[in-house]
Amino acid sequence: MENKFDKKSVGIVVPKTAEIKHSLSLDCGKVLEKFSLVFETYGKLNKEKSNAILICHALSGDHHAAGYHSNDDKKPGWWDSCIGPGKPFDTNKFFIVSLNNLGGCMGSTGPNTTNIETGIEYGPDFPIVTVNDWVNSQKLLADFLEIEKWACVVGGSLGGMQALQWAISYPDKIKNSIIVAAAAKLSAQNIAFNEVARQAIITDPEFHDGHYNKFGVIPKRGLSIARMLGHITYLSDDSMRQKFGRDLREGKLHFGYDVDFQVESYLRYQAQAFVDRFDANTYLLMTKALDYFDPAKDHGGELFKAFKNTESKFLVISFTSDWRFSPAKSHEIVKALLKARKNVSYAEIEANQGHDAFLMPIPHYFNVLRNFMENL
Amino acid sequence: MENKFDKKSVGIVVPKTAEIKHSLSLDCGKVLEKFSLVFETYGKLNKEKSNAILICHALSGDHHAAGYHSNDDKKPGWWDSCIGPGKPFDTNKFFIVSLNNLGGCMGSTGPNTTNIETGIEYGPDFPIVTVNDWVNSQKLLADFLEIEKWACVVGGSLGGMQALQWAISYPDKIKNSIIVAAAAKLSAQNIAFNEVARQAIITDPEFHDGHYNKFGVIPKRGLSIARMLGHITYLSDDSMRQKFGRDLREGKLHFGYDVDFQVESYLRYQAQAFVDRFDANTYLLMTKALDYFDPAKDHGGELFKAFKNTESKFLVISFTSDWRFSPAKSHEIVKALLKARKNVSYAEIEANQGHDAFLMPIPHYFNVLRNFMENL
Repeated sequence: MENKFDKKSVGIVVPKTAEIKHSLSLDCGKVLEKFSLVFETYGKLNKEKSNAILICHALSGDHHAAGYHSNDDKKPGWWDSCIGPGKPFDTNKFFIVSLNNLGGCMGSTGPNTTNIETGIEYGPDFPIVTVNDWVNSQKLLADFLEIEKWACVVGGSLGGMQALQWAISYPDKIKNSIIVAAAAKLSAQNIAFNEVARQAIITDPEFHDGHYNKFGVIPKRGLSIARMLGHITYLSDDSMRQKFGRDLREGKLHFGYDVDFQVESYLRYQAQAFVDRFDANTYLLMTKALDYFDPAKDHGGELFKAFKNTESKFLVISFTSDWRFSPAKSHEIVKALLKARKNVSYAEIEANQGHDAFLMPIPHYFNVLRNFMENL
Repeated sequence: MENKFDKKSVGIVVPKTAEIKHSLSLDCGKVLEKFSLVFETYGKLNKEKSNAILICHALSGDHHAAGYHSNDDKKPGWWDSCIGPGKPFDTNKFFIVSLNNLGGCMGSTGPNTTNIETGIEYGPDFPIVTVNDWVNSQKLLADFLEIEKWACVVGGSLGGMQALQWAISYPDKIKNSIIVAAAAKLSAQNIAFNEVARQAIITDPEFHDGHYNKFGVIPKRGLSIARMLGHITYLSDDSMRQKFGRDLREGKLHFGYDVDFQVESYLRYQAQAFVDRFDANTYLLMTKALDYFDPAKDHGGELFKAFKNTESKFLVISFTSDWRFSPAKSHEIVKALLKARKNVSYAEIEANQGHDAFLMPIPHYFNVLRNFMENL
């Protein structure tokens, strides 16, 4: 198809579906006999199958990381700035795979899909999956694609946790791991924010114990609150000040509960856009995957021991103003990798955009990625 | 009454009510023809009436700052550690007044009281009041008590804003102002957190546009979310780590949405306790009073100009781990006071309890208060 987009875009992409006919034992004890994963690919797999990169998405992400789904598409994929010809993840050189995670809501088997055993939608009965489960499901996707070994697994935030877990779970199936704005485990404060978001959703009367679709409604109030709260933690205090300050939307105070300040208007808009596209049960299970991630847990809390058998090279990146997963969280990973005598590079990027910086085309950040990728 | 409590307690206290028969013009343009303020006093007013201290409360506080309401009371007032014989606010020396603010829900005229003009409960029709309005109402309380001039006005957080506004609004009626863990204006992030809390309450189907009492319900889900969120911002990441870490309540993960981690249990408990005692309409208007506070606004954004006519001495205190109103916010106040050539002392207290530190008996903090009070 002709590419009406700029030369650095991967252009129009068509999602594919992998029907995985292999059972998957989950950490919760349940077993999925088979499942589907929706994915996109950018670039070409070489003959040696040695140039494959896996992109793992974060809380509200999906398989659509780059390019456009149609000529009318207004927005490209969520990491389009980073993926394409000549971009840090260069599609002239690499074959890039991006999937919608198991439990997601954009086509992969998850709460909003039909349970083939019962013939009805999973809804809240879809099991809570972990980062470890995701990595196991992604290994089955690699098998499906006949990719023996990833040249690189990369992700930001919750995606970075998957990149880290890959190196632990399948040490000989991954050559490089890029972990951006992530953490080896959530803090009590992180868990607390997730819990407030969950309570907002679960206590919404239109949640109906997760069976909202049966009732033809969605828990939009709860999901809105969750998203607004999320947005606050994605931005830094500083970037909010620059973006909104104390600017009034209509130049005056209203002495009521309609929007006074620009920041209120922004949050309401973001929340509405999210409610229109995202599934509440998926949101809930994604937050639990975050809370549960703790690879050190099975090693007496000693993170370096979890890295004992890893064989990959690591690149860890953090952003100075990220308070959701601060640089200190990345330091924890780097220190443990060094203690385990692993090959790790670390970059702390000066950026005032907060956690969201991992999605931004910040020159220093992209140079670090580019250099690493050129020397894989 | 005999004091069964320890010698440093003010013992049993009985709240009083001031019927203010003086009209009050509010910033929103409305006028209250008369109103009631509930208050408590500790210590004795001297003959010269020169030893009166006004305590201003924060978002969820009230008039009950010290002592007990009965012998069966399990908990003393919210600032009991700081008020009493021999304590920083020494009732052997000072006459201390603590009120429930206008618009509050603990007895003063507010949303949950009867509008004498209509004979029905104000509910959501109670006007949004500002910090400036509160200070004007407190001035009428001072007149009622025949206190010509406060030896000191003191408050933490939203209470600190009132102490600051007193110095601006009534420069010759206040000798000293103590401003703890406060800010001269909220940041976009602060406003954003307040907005999420408000949206949680307002979108609760049991809010009924604020007329929930008419329907015999309360918007408990929304108020819970608001309180949980508030609690996260009152604690530091560090204090949450120390208090809860990643401890599991029952030693194992549940792979469901019941409580897994101790921090989740804590938040739910705090939320429930709050819903049982606080009014949603009051919560809403308190958050707006916070958002609207900005004494520099009428001076082209130049805070030091707002202080031009102040006559009081100032003590400003912040806490290192407070990220709700960080030390930087206090620096802004101190710098402006210095630029206006005012008498200001500043203490930045090393404390890991976050914003909540202002309620804690931290030795260095209490020494600073004590020294200041001994040299009034």
